[in-house]
Amino acid sequence: MATVNENYLKLPGNYLFSTIGKKVREYEAAHPESRIIRLGIGDVTQPIAPSVIEALHRAVDEMGQAETFRGYAPDLGYEFLRETIAEQDYRSRGCDISADEIFVSDGAKSDCSNIQEIFGADNAIAVCDPVYPVYVDSNVMAGRTGTYSSETGTWSDVIYMPCTAENDFVAELPKEAPDLIYLCYPNNPTGASITKERLQAWVDYAIANGAILLYDAAYEAYISDPALPHSIYECKGARGCAIEFRSFSKNAGFTGLRLGFTVIPKELKAGGQALHPLWARRHGTKYNGAPYIIQRAGEAVYSEQGRQEVRQQVAAYMKNASYLRTELLAAGYEVYGGENAPYIWLKTPKGMKSWDFFDYLLEQANVVGTPGAGFGPSGEHYFRLTAFGTYENSVEAIRRIKAL
Amino acid sequence: MATVNENYLKLPGNYLFSTIGKKVREYEAAHPESRIIRLGIGDVTQPIAPSVIEALHRAVDEMGQAETFRGYAPDLGYEFLRETIAEQDYRSRGCDISADEIFVSDGAKSDCSNIQEIFGADNAIAVCDPVYPVYVDSNVMAGRTGTYSSETGTWSDVIYMPCTAENDFVAELPKEAPDLIYLCYPNNPTGASITKERLQAWVDYAIANGAILLYDAAYEAYISDPALPHSIYECKGARGCAIEFRSFSKNAGFTGLRLGFTVIPKELKAGGQALHPLWARRHGTKYNGAPYIIQRAGEAVYSEQGRQEVRQQVAAYMKNASYLRTELLAAGYEVYGGENAPYIWLKTPKGMKSWDFFDYLLEQANVVGTPGAGFGPSGEHYFRLTAFGTYENSVEAIRRIKAL
Repeated sequence: MATVNENYLKLPGNYLFSTIGKKVREYEAAHPESRIIRLGIGDVTQPIAPSVIEALHRAVDEMGQAETFRGYAPDLGYEFLRETIAEQDYRSRGCDISADEIFVSDGAKSDCSNIQEIFGADNAIAVCDPVYPVYVDSNVMAGRTGTYSSETGTWSDVIYMPCTAENDFVAELPKEAPDLIYLCYPNNPTGASITKERLQAWVDYAIANGAILLYDAAYEAYISDPALPHSIYECKGARGCAIEFRSFSKNAGFTGLRLGFTVIPKELKAGGQALHPLWARRHGTKYNGAPYIIQRAGEAVYSEQGRQEVRQQVAAYMKNASYLRTELLAAGYEVYGGENAPYIWLKTPKGMKSWDFFDYLLEQANVVGTPGAGFGPSGEHYFRLTAFGTYENSVEAIRRIKAL
Repeated sequence: MATVNENYLKLPGNYLFSTIGKKVREYEAAHPESRIIRLGIGDVTQPIAPSVIEALHRAVDEMGQAETFRGYAPDLGYEFLRETIAEQDYRSRGCDISADEIFVSDGAKSDCSNIQEIFGADNAIAVCDPVYPVYVDSNVMAGRTGTYSSETGTWSDVIYMPCTAENDFVAELPKEAPDLIYLCYPNNPTGASITKERLQAWVDYAIANGAILLYDAAYEAYISDPALPHSIYECKGARGCAIEFRSFSKNAGFTGLRLGFTVIPKELKAGGQALHPLWARRHGTKYNGAPYIIQRAGEAVYSEQGRQEVRQQVAAYMKNASYLRTELLAAGYEVYGGENAPYIWLKTPKGMKSWDFFDYLLEQANVVGTPGAGFGPSGEHYFRLTAFGTYENSVEAIRRIKAL
């Protein structure tokens, strides 16, 4: 008789953002007159840049003509996009990454959750706490995480690395011996950034301990401080210990277009086995490439005009971030992030639990944020607001929060 | 120290179509003057239908305007598409399937390979032999298949159900007790179809034995015989034992646009656990939905105009199929398929091994097909040709084959 993957049944409740969506829908149904401002889920609001729209139209037209129609894409991505990425995201920053080390996909969420598949079932994972839930949940589904304690909100076999105000939201090197270490900088949810020195310390640690760093750089476009690293491959030795994930969702508003990529250097090995061919095999077997028209859209992001346009989008979001940060600080909140990342991470007032603050803000101000506890136990008493709304909504949200 | 998923290392050689691609590229490099005709990989050649192109342009324009821009899609697909699918693919055929049982995705390959994740690691799988390699390979990666014998070309823990001319390429009900049974009709690679009675027998068998049928109906649009079932849900009781996969790749030429869907009825259970919430959880955790513009393109396939246009595409491919079938029969080949499916399945001449026939055809006729052995041991001495080329190329391929 067929049975289910029991690991799925261990997952507590729903995916964080589904839970928030449900709560908001229920509140709206009960209060149809309310005008809710969504600063919860990290979805963008600005339309796709004009040069990307043009590229999409051109590619659509190509698909409508027999001479230019394209069927199955190359498994790992079109050469025109992989080459552009390698040149502009890496070589131009002095990172030694070649086009055939780039794996184009439908987004960083897919890649971040699927990457664990190519590793051993008994590999110990370490995550920052708080953390993007996908890293943990995908390992729960694969059976790597042991048992869940609803009391502590933690899994018995996961190594949690607390990131709090005390350590500037950058984890300490773990005393345990993790095999796979998830890092995300600029950080979701805390908005923290990491210096090149501290990132180098992680690379050195991983090399010394035979660990693999899974580095999520989805928010690199939000870095304003020129001293901060955009890629882990800016660190010495990273080609021997790190996989990097990138996304078009936040740097170019592709949340609804779906495009991302993963970098796996050819010499990167785990237990003596090269990882590049394994991930290539996964792509070849379980995936059929990102749509041609979307890959052309991705290419347009790197054009002269495209770069200018998406820089303006990022700047607009960072204007929101700066506004939210400044105003919340002025209102007496303890506030982090928002300087090199599109997320504001604030301490809940008066020691409120973060889900209580979520309900309070939803009901009293009709503003939706994300409760820090949803990202892990060290997120308790914290709360995330995103800068991805419109400026008008950011201003109105602050007005309402101040009026509380 | 990090280690790799050892199951990946058990996979012999490369994914079938990657191997073929490599062989063809090498031949072309050595013979730059050759004009190769590709009837190997099942990729379409006709451009996207005009009404779908229009829908794409409209959706692209929406993405370029703040008022109509769409960010993250609903995890399981846009309602407009799910509702259209439920109505036109199912309810209009008398199948009781509702919109919220449709999971929209980036293609049937992804879904067919990922579906095994929600089942127990010790579930025994049964596959037709020959078979689309993705069903087996995805289970190899998950550790369900035991050890590989290069002598027999089979896995120790997979139940193979031979499909040969002797049983009309429809597997017998297995004597073993598989938990998960992969079926694909109209069949890839053999081009065989299944009658409603024989499919009903599979449904009855699955219910009696607590097995789940994983029914790949990617080629249903190619059915010309009105008596044949397009969906497994045309069979009584199928809601209690079957998952169905569908694709836009072959019915509307979306191989380069990427769109498909999976149907999981709400009451479908394995070991007492409902499967619908598990697959929903997988989508929510590891996937971010198909691009909005591609979902609008999918919707357009179902419009009055769209339906007419894609019917003409299918008819053109089936004209090729009929031509290939008739001419090869006339040339003395033993030929199957090509009547309710876009694949021609022929017996290799003079008992040639199928990879030898592949090389022979590539070198002597510059025609690329797919060796049957690549689909499983019972595919040995068979060869697949697709009807997805142009008519001109189909004619030229036949001319060259006849001249051999």
